[in-house]
Order: sequence, then C-alpha cells, then structure tokens
Amino acid sequence: MNKVITISREFGSGGREFARRLADKLNFAYYDREIITEIAKRTNLAEEYIQHLNEQRPSPLFPITVGNTISPVMDVMWEQQNQIFVEQSNLLKELAEKSDCVIVGRAADYVLEDFKPFRIRLYAELGSRIERCKARAKDGENLNDRQLKQKINEVDKNRAKYYQFYTGKKWADPINYDLCINTTDKDIKKLAEFFADIIK
Amino acid sequence: MNKVITISREFGSGGREFARRLADKLNFAYYDREIITEIAKRTNLAEEYIQHLNEQRPSPLFPITVGNTISPVMDVMWEQQNQIFVEQSNLLKELAEKSDCVIVGRAADYVLEDFKPFRIRLYAELGSRIERCKARAKDGENLNDRQLKQKINEVDKNRAKYYQFYTGKKWADPINYDLCINTTDKDIKKLAEFFADIIK
Repeated sequence: MNKVITISREFGSGGREFARRLADKLNFAYYDREIITEIAKRTNLAEEYIQHLNEQRPSPLFPITVGNTISPVMDVMWEQQNQIFVEQSNLLKELAEKSDCVIVGRAADYVLEDFKPFRIRLYAELGSRIERCKARAKDGENLNDRQLKQKINEVDKNRAKYYQFYTGKKWADPINYDLCINTTDKDIKKLAEFFADIIK
Repeated sequence: MNKVITISREFGSGGREFARRLADKLNFAYYDREIITEIAKRTNLAEEYIQHLNEQRPSPLFPITVGNTISPVMDVMWEQQNQIFVEQSNLLKELAEKSDCVIVGRAADYVLEDFKPFRIRLYAELGSRIERCKARAKDGENLNDRQLKQKINEVDKNRAKYYQFYTGKKWADPINYDLCINTTDKDIKKLAEFFADIIK
C-alpha cells in the first residue's frame, strides 16, 4: 500500500508550505490546485466556484425559508457541495492508489482512512499566524491585524464545521491526528526537513 | 543554556517510559523519584505523603467549613501543597541549571519557561491507555476495564486541575506544547528513538 500523509492545519500555521516541502523532501506526490482542476472537469463547475464552495461550511440543516418554501438557491448549493465532496473523495482515493502522496485539508485523514495515513496537524499561536499571513500577502492585499484575526477565525470556523459535518469528529481534537506540531515562530522549511527524516 | 525537555502526558499514554528512554538515548538526565526524595528532605514531609499531595487537585477555594470555622486539616494540606510546589519549582530550576534534562509532569513546561524547554505532550485513545495500564499493572493489581477507565479519568482530572491552578492555562490545550504525539498502539521504545533523533 502506498504511503499517505494528510495535513490538517489552522489558517496561517504554514500548512500548505509544510506539505509541499515535506512532499519534495520525501519524493511524494503533492496535489493541491490539480484537485480543483480535476473536480471542475468531473462536475462541470467552474474552478473558482468549487474553491468557494469548499471553503463554506455545509448548512443543510438550516435552509433559508421564504414563507413555506425552502430557497431553491440554498438547495442547489447544498447539493453541489455534497457532489463535490463525493467526487473529491473518489479522486483522493485514486491518487492514493497511484503513488505515495501528501494531501492538505479536505478531511483527507477520514476519507483515506483505509490507507492508514500518517495524520499531521499544524497549529500556532494567533500572533504568529497573523505574522505569517502578512508575510505571504499578495500585492494590494493589505489587511490590518484586526481584520486578519477576523479572517483567521472565520476560515477556521468553516474548516471545523466542514470537517465535523463530513466526519462526525472534532477538527481541532488531537486524538484525530498522529502528530500535532506547533509552528509558532518556527521556520517551516526546517520543520519539514526534520519531520521528513522521521517519516522516511 | 542547558537543553530541557518537558513531558506532559495523559495517564496510560506511556509518558514516563517515553521520558526515560528519550533521556537515555539523548544522554540527558532524567529525574523522577529523586525529586520526591529531595523534596522530602527539604520539607520534612514523608515521601509517600508528598506523592499523595502531588496527585491531588489544589482546592483552597472551597475549604470544608464546620459551622463558621474553616477546617484546620484542609488548611494545613493546602499550605503543604503550596510549599511542595514552591520547593519543587526551585529544585527543577536547580536541576535545569546543572545539566540537560527531561522532566515529566509537575507543570515543568511553565516552571522552567525561562529555559525555553522543548515541550512534548503524549496522549492516546482510551482503549489503548487501558491496555497499557493492564500491561504494566503490578502483581495483585487487578482492575477491570470499567475501573481502569474510572481511574484514568480521575487521575487526568486531577492533573488538569493542578496544571490550571498553578499555570492559569489549560492542560490539554496543544498550544501549550511544541509537539503532541498520539501513542495509540505505538511502541514507546521506537517512538522515543524517532523523536530523540529530531531533538538531537
């Protein structure tokens, strides 16, 4: 069976960079944008829309009602979100069948549990996450600390709801992971090299 | 400055064995019973009594009252518990000044924060902790699963209260540690060897 490493990460904890560097160092496949592109092909939905839906918490239990009618917009979004989750889960399994790989997010620790993945979670203190967000901000993106804090909280809340909805488990609970790494003020490159040595 | 590693651990997660093996492998000092013996000397209290007080949650806020009188027994215990914590904290600092070392429990990550310790936490699924307790049970100690579960919960509740009382922080929160390791079904010897390589 191929080796699978899953990375769960708090927003701003350096998870994506860690995953990429870990994969490089181990010579494992690393999929990110390619997953969205492939799902877009399979579902005939736009990549940006898939990305958007993937970042929303699923909310089928409280649909917007107008009078007695459930809003058809919510219903469609909810169906699409589920469709994406199913297609994405199938794709993740295909990728794990193909070669050793590192997968970020997407409840992959749960989706790929038959592959007995090595499940890593990255987290960090809020201040450190804010600094990391600033350092990697694109040109023109100029959020202040308060706005970044708000964004971090919002993204993590959605990730937690997404995870809990599809797995029935708590996203931040260490028991769902093999190793939890505090990245506060750490050099992600060095961390990835350290842990690659362990996993090898 | 000497290197200090602190180990926080759920009861039954293999923390003491991990600490001992890690210290062996790294050639660091490992203190356990010696701490109790030294505190006994410094406080003129019996070793068994110190061990007992160390495992109780501090409870100064709700003293037993008899009529209008605060029970003098509770008062003495509470004072002794604090005295032990202070003496123990001083001793831990002396030990950390002396050489590289590994310290288990005792809120050492907080007490020794000036030494910038590498803070490890070990945890595991309940079933695995029950099995580990059984495997290391002394002759004549024959608790069933229900009793072991009760004991595990009780010990961890006391450890959490002790930690929170003296540090003001949550014992089980990963943010208080650099690395959290899930020991479920893992061989502690191998784990310790792995992680010794990282820390070296």
